[in-house]
Amino acid sequence: MLGGMRAVVITRPGGPEVLELREVPDPLPGPEELLVRVRAASLNRADLLQRRGLYPAPPGAPAEIPGLEFAGEVEACGPRATGHAPGDRVMGILGGGGQAEKLVLHHRTCMPVPRSLTWEQAAAIPEAFLTAYDALHVQGRLAADESVLVQAAGSGVGTAAFQLARAGGGSPIGLTRTAEKRRRLEEAGLRPVFDPDDPSAPDRVIRATGGRGVDLILDLVGAAAWPLHARVLAERGRIVVIGLLSGSRCEIDLGLLMKKRATLVGSVLRSRSLDEKAALTREFAERMLPLFSRGTLSPWVHCSFPLHRVRDAHALMERNENLGKIVLTMEDDPAAEGR
Amino acid sequence: MLGGMRAVVITRPGGPEVLELREVPDPLPGPEELLVRVRAASLNRADLLQRRGLYPAPPGAPAEIPGLEFAGEVEACGPRATGHAPGDRVMGILGGGGQAEKLVLHHRTCMPVPRSLTWEQAAAIPEAFLTAYDALHVQGRLAADESVLVQAAGSGVGTAAFQLARAGGGSPIGLTRTAEKRRRLEEAGLRPVFDPDDPSAPDRVIRATGGRGVDLILDLVGAAAWPLHARVLAERGRIVVIGLLSGSRCEIDLGLLMKKRATLVGSVLRSRSLDEKAALTREFAERMLPLFSRGTLSPWVHCSFPLHRVRDAHALMERNENLGKIVLTMEDDPAAEGR
Repeated sequence: MLGGMRAVVITRPGGPEVLELREVPDPLPGPEELLVRVRAASLNRADLLQRRGLYPAPPGAPAEIPGLEFAGEVEACGPRATGHAPGDRVMGILGGGGQAEKLVLHHRTCMPVPRSLTWEQAAAIPEAFLTAYDALHVQGRLAADESVLVQAAGSGVGTAAFQLARAGGGSPIGLTRTAEKRRRLEEAGLRPVFDPDDPSAPDRVIRATGGRGVDLILDLVGAAAWPLHARVLAERGRIVVIGLLSGSRCEIDLGLLMKKRATLVGSVLRSRSLDEKAALTREFAERMLPLFSRGTLSPWVHCSFPLHRVRDAHALMERNENLGKIVLTMEDDPAAEGR
Repeated sequence: MLGGMRAVVITRPGGPEVLELREVPDPLPGPEELLVRVRAASLNRADLLQRRGLYPAPPGAPAEIPGLEFAGEVEACGPRATGHAPGDRVMGILGGGGQAEKLVLHHRTCMPVPRSLTWEQAAAIPEAFLTAYDALHVQGRLAADESVLVQAAGSGVGTAAFQLARAGGGSPIGLTRTAEKRRRLEEAGLRPVFDPDDPSAPDRVIRATGGRGVDLILDLVGAAAWPLHARVLAERGRIVVIGLLSGSRCEIDLGLLMKKRATLVGSVLRSRSLDEKAALTREFAERMLPLFSRGTLSPWVHCSFPLHRVRDAHALMERNENLGKIVLTMEDDPAAEGR
């Protein structure tokens, strides 16, 4: 007999009100998969798009249960799933299905959770840090001593990118509209952070690079940010587009790209093949996980909600008030259990 | 006493009529430079832009003498110029100054001329083949078995790219508006070549890739070609922009770049540092020059003019009638000598 579990379900396209906590059958691990008891799962902007019907899950991922990352304990291993054993603390990225009490994933996309981290902290790592790591180092080919402009510096990806850029020998510069976020980022040592709406922002950014311009831009903003990017980008600079908060279509001057010998890269993680996700996970785990234990890297958790408050979590992210990640936790909730 | 030489001089910004053949002092080689007696020098679209005042020579290059490539004989070597001796047949790219009877260039940007080639053929190689090689292999990271869309397939760079893509194991597809050029390219084995103005062109291009889309686009056209490029580009495809025949500004859908995980690279050779030009020249010479002797690669020469007919050469290129390169030759011209 199949067990049952609670999961966030997108019942139809719409606002946070279309999200419901429902009892669904446990997922079954395939031969190379792990069954994981989820302890915490973070929210992403992609969840908001998926809820509105704009970003369907890729083939193979649960179509109605959102959740692109998790931290939890291995409960069972498929016969050909290696490298992890029941009871192991693990985390990873998913095509979907993370916002549930249990999930299955391929063993090669699973990473160990550093001992020093709580479940909430661990759940705040995979999507933000793998996205930022891939954008900076794989797509953006960041070299030591290069400058990096981080859009949406207060987001989960932004705070991860700031730390990763510095850990890689680069000089990050942040942008965020919210004065309070700028203040708190700078207090925490993630500086400088400027206001992109300040007319002097381009000059400030260029000055922060010593006048040479920005070598690598991590773009989560899209269309509205292009004029600033075109202005501050250094010769041979790269722009890696991983988000479109302000929209998608913009007028681009190809001649400027030629003159600057610039590179513009569009990137997403979710639709990638298993092999690509596995390779990125392995590289990140080998090179970056030790830095969490040493404190060089640390996930920014804005707050956590129990799973049954997922609507509140979505509303908070839509108000764009979070500094770092919003985490859902699976602690027992008698009220929800009784439903 | 300084010798004198004849050179093409841009006397002021304007049409072909502003070009004059003038007597100017011989250039003097620096310690690491070679003095070369030019035998042939090809035209480039950049010369037309420079003549109109839109593309000034980079620092260090002659400001008023155009000419980005040449073939000729070494006449003298600076004390620290190695690898070449007087009498050697050489060719190379320049920041300017090639359309003259003599020029100087750094010894590291000089390549030997394969024995099987005439001066006209050799002069048709450096800019077209280095540009195409760099765009395909360095900027575009062409892998074997990938498809390549070559815009302006009948141009010097286009005919070079077609051959280089095939030599690298890729499958080139050409585009050119002129029916006569399509016919002659296909007769010469450079096929398929389609008409970009044909409404079925995108479908034809995609069909020629077996339905998967184009892995690498070599763009010499710019703005007007963007809609076709956006449509035919494969997932993880690259577009390398090296020319803007149709204009520079276009509306780009960044979301499409993300979805396709596409890369857009702007590239120019002329403004690059000596080190970069030298590295590219060396790599090309080692890997590609042997293929000219074997006949795998061959420069396309549309026609040649004696130097004093440079205005006719410009007019021909402006009419866009040439299939391959237009070459200027330095053979003695008693009429011109007498001026």
